[in-house]
Amino acid sequence: MNPADQPRSLRIVVVNSGELHTDDASLAAQARRGAALRAGLLESGYDIVASLPPDVYLPERIAQLQPDLIIIDSESDARDVLEHIVIATREARRPIVLFTEDDRPGTMEAAVDAGVSAYIVAGLRAERVRPVLDVALARFRREQKLLGELADTRQQLVERKTLDRAKGLLMARYKLTEEEAYGRLRSMAMNKNLRLAEIAQRILDIEDLLG
Amino acid sequence: MNPADQPRSLRIVVVNSGELHTDDASLAAQARRGAALRAGLLESGYDIVASLPPDVYLPERIAQLQPDLIIIDSESDARDVLEHIVIATREARRPIVLFTEDDRPGTMEAAVDAGVSAYIVAGLRAERVRPVLDVALARFRREQKLLGELADTRQQLVERKTLDRAKGLLMARYKLTEEEAYGRLRSMAMNKNLRLAEIAQRILDIEDLLG
Repeated sequence: MNPADQPRSLRIVVVNSGELHTDDASLAAQARRGAALRAGLLESGYDIVASLPPDVYLPERIAQLQPDLIIIDSESDARDVLEHIVIATREARRPIVLFTEDDRPGTMEAAVDAGVSAYIVAGLRAERVRPVLDVALARFRREQKLLGELADTRQQLVERKTLDRAKGLLMARYKLTEEEAYGRLRSMAMNKNLRLAEIAQRILDIEDLLG
Repeated sequence: MNPADQPRSLRIVVVNSGELHTDDASLAAQARRGAALRAGLLESGYDIVASLPPDVYLPERIAQLQPDLIIIDSESDARDVLEHIVIATREARRPIVLFTEDDRPGTMEAAVDAGVSAYIVAGLRAERVRPVLDVALARFRREQKLLGELADTRQQLVERKTLDRAKGLLMARYKLTEEEAYGRLRSMAMNKNLRLAEIAQRILDIEDLLG
């Protein structure tokens, strides 16, 4: 077995939607869902570090607990719970697995767009928990990689534009050639111990200030 | 019901891994998987336009059939089948749903990285097919959007670099200011009815040829 294939002890936070049932059948179904989830996590060697309600304290709790993965167990009102989770993971994205009976395409689309790594309808059985979590983690890593590449490329584009504008500004103001302007930016960056794009941005900021 | 929520008649290609079983229990299990899949698709109002084996003809068949979604039903050797599908969808990406019993994290990771929209272990039951496909479609759309944004941003960055290099070349060769060089590129682009980045690339190509 590859070391990467070995179960790590994931720290998991479960967020329950907290539907309030009064009839026996619904209560029993709810209990069965919870039991299947706990059994599946236990068999996988994963820790539930907390079960939390989807309330205004959720962002704070998640920031404190720093879970590796968040499981939402939401029988019907997945959208409401999701909103709380999205706010709670806005600063630091985390893998989110949603087990629900809510199969409305609108809810699915919203959940996937919000970055949910797995949206599982009617699939909460103990023996499925582990593979669902594994796929969700792989998916989360891939999406983080894509989002990271996108952010990097955007940043490079922005920095290049900033640099060009600053260069143009120096060329016009001091009657420099492009090479001279670039050389001046470089030596300013070295003197101030800043990156080229940062110096370029400061020059544009000062220009804005002075009009 | 929202019009977007209504089942469209998706054109689906199913790729079977074609495991050759000889014992009755395995044959029965294989038949049950196939029956569950067909029942689930039928209930969802989706069409199986073809069932195909994972062979060298697959790319050609998929190019002909142009399915909206590809389902892989692969009990154990998901990785082999996947390789064929990846080749078959390299030119035009399509949503891929993989139903399997193969729960090795290495296979999952490879499948997700290859762009599989849903990787479902031990979940092939008729009533789950529809929601799995719906989530897979939402996921595919999101990933296409991300990949599209990434490709666009990379393209902008490349074009900007090309333009800058061409501008620098004109400035050096004809002793032009930056503005003059830019102006010359613009008028060349207009005369040739090409985009600025295309003209810039041609100038660099000619420079390479002439040394």
